[in-house]
Amino acid sequence: MNAWFSEAHRLHTGLKEFSYGQWLDGFELPVRAEAVRERFLALQLGPVQAPPDRGLAPLARVHAADYLDFLQQAWPRWTALGRRHPALPMIWRADAQLPHQLPRHIDGQLGFYSQDAECSLVEGTWAAVYGSAQCALAAAADLLAGQRCSFAICRPPGHHATARAMGGFCYLNNVAIAAQSLRDHGLQRVAVVDVDYHHGNGTQSIFWSRGDVFFASLHADPHDDYPFFSGHASETGIGEGLGRNLNLPLPPGTDGAQYLAALDRALQAVAAFGPQALLVSLGVDTFERDPISAFKLRSDDYPQIGRRLAALGLPTAYVFEGGYATEEVGANTVGVLQGHLAAG
Amino acid sequence: MNAWFSEAHRLHTGLKEFSYGQWLDGFELPVRAEAVRERFLALQLGPVQAPPDRGLAPLARVHAADYLDFLQQAWPRWTALGRRHPALPMIWRADAQLPHQLPRHIDGQLGFYSQDAECSLVEGTWAAVYGSAQCALAAAADLLAGQRCSFAICRPPGHHATARAMGGFCYLNNVAIAAQSLRDHGLQRVAVVDVDYHHGNGTQSIFWSRGDVFFASLHADPHDDYPFFSGHASETGIGEGLGRNLNLPLPPGTDGAQYLAALDRALQAVAAFGPQALLVSLGVDTFERDPISAFKLRSDDYPQIGRRLAALGLPTAYVFEGGYATEEVGANTVGVLQGHLAAG
Repeated sequence: MNAWFSEAHRLHTGLKEFSYGQWLDGFELPVRAEAVRERFLALQLGPVQAPPDRGLAPLARVHAADYLDFLQQAWPRWTALGRRHPALPMIWRADAQLPHQLPRHIDGQLGFYSQDAECSLVEGTWAAVYGSAQCALAAAADLLAGQRCSFAICRPPGHHATARAMGGFCYLNNVAIAAQSLRDHGLQRVAVVDVDYHHGNGTQSIFWSRGDVFFASLHADPHDDYPFFSGHASETGIGEGLGRNLNLPLPPGTDGAQYLAALDRALQAVAAFGPQALLVSLGVDTFERDPISAFKLRSDDYPQIGRRLAALGLPTAYVFEGGYATEEVGANTVGVLQGHLAAG
Repeated sequence: MNAWFSEAHRLHTGLKEFSYGQWLDGFELPVRAEAVRERFLALQLGPVQAPPDRGLAPLARVHAADYLDFLQQAWPRWTALGRRHPALPMIWRADAQLPHQLPRHIDGQLGFYSQDAECSLVEGTWAAVYGSAQCALAAAADLLAGQRCSFAICRPPGHHATARAMGGFCYLNNVAIAAQSLRDHGLQRVAVVDVDYHHGNGTQSIFWSRGDVFFASLHADPHDDYPFFSGHASETGIGEGLGRNLNLPLPPGTDGAQYLAALDRALQAVAAFGPQALLVSLGVDTFERDPISAFKLRSDDYPQIGRRLAALGLPTAYVFEGGYATEEVGANTVGVLQGHLAAG
């Protein structure tokens, strides 16, 4: 199995976030991707390579052009004001009744393009998010080339990013960019399964009205946890996308057995959709000792997730998302891949 | 001239805010209202009294019932999670495409009801905002009783609050509550003039589609400053409210002469509307040494503002809004009233 890894992720560091009413050091640390890479190499599952540069065009198939421009220009514009700390928004679009044209000021634009205050922009952020998206594209290309399985060690993660807004440590939606790339290279039907602890609200948003990409997500009930505003079972898509969005919210304390039962439900729906390829948003913040989550999965549950995903018998690309228990994030993430390979 | 003042404002203290990417002590300090009260008393402009309690009903004429419930319950719900620091939101409704039902969790509800992260909720917040709104109602009642001029020393301020969202240090829209009270007591046409440095986006939102309340605001161009998403001259209302909203955005560095010329334009439009009463959102953060603003008004410009407002010849209630230069906020605010009285 190929693994794709961009060293540029290390430039995305020194992050801050404003969460739970507190001003915190960022949870989304460089050591996360390094730990996953090291574990993958230690187990000799395959080569870890830098992704080819496929340019901006495949990113622009998912994200608005003005948003991509903003991400590239935000840091120099921020520092031009004499600011040296990480860029974060201070206001958000809250009132749907009123006109909201794109503000000109960087403080306004940060809010216009944000869902929360968890996405620090620093000098190296664009290089990191660009490299992260290229990793996802490389994994998609592996499937197009006939590989059965590939792994994108994406950092920053992507599944909270919508077409035009960052959020939850996510700037570009890596898995959505990969799914769109598969579509643009001729695949008719693609499925995305999101096993991150948090609802993949960005991915849902991007494919909300589309019939060609099935999205299934297992996650903490939004009544209990981030992202709070979406992820309910009642959200099933609109128009051609109706019935192509499956949310399985789960309660605090969910353990491995409960989780795997819900995963079976999701995979039945995926199989019924009949996709030609599977993309997995692979977060392991479902882990019992994750610092910001409330599920109770254990390390030996993760290979079971991989086994079940492999049982679909589809070309499968894994795209790394969340997981903040830095000691175990490597073993748990790669554990899913081990389970997949053992089944395949 | 009566002035209305609620001592409960002092309970709204120990505030924090997340602005400009920085975690800051709140700019909206108790000393602001105290300084205004002391100056009013020192100049012997009239009595300063505690407002009668007119209950929740007049607040609910402007604000959604669920929002009023939230404001009353937020602090006990926040502390029930073991949190003792000021409550602030961590996520906002950013993607209009997706369903957004009211979250159940306090972190989600804080975001649902917020525009930014500048509105700390602490133990005494509800008592303060309730008292502040009662001050505005008392000033409106003065006009109904035949007084020519009254002054509500509101704290917290109100003009950024929409019917269902706090923002910019504002929780309840005091001036809108006063305007609605005048309407509910038989006045047919009411005008609100907002001379705060920032656009009164909440007031605009509340009366956006209404023909009975004319709203005119002079403020920093939203391309340059908070609230960034509204305040453009192109925003003139909709439906019955079309033409009843006048925004006069002004550039950084605006001085007294430029400001007064713009005020004359606003007051011509107010006179043409033919209101039976005038409410003034009185912020003095247009001052040259205000710590968060970029206009260049001097202390001797403020009486000129009051003179011009008085020249409309209308029963007028002043409602205190922003102004963060604590040394001069008393003199500048009361300076407007002095100008009004000198002209009347």
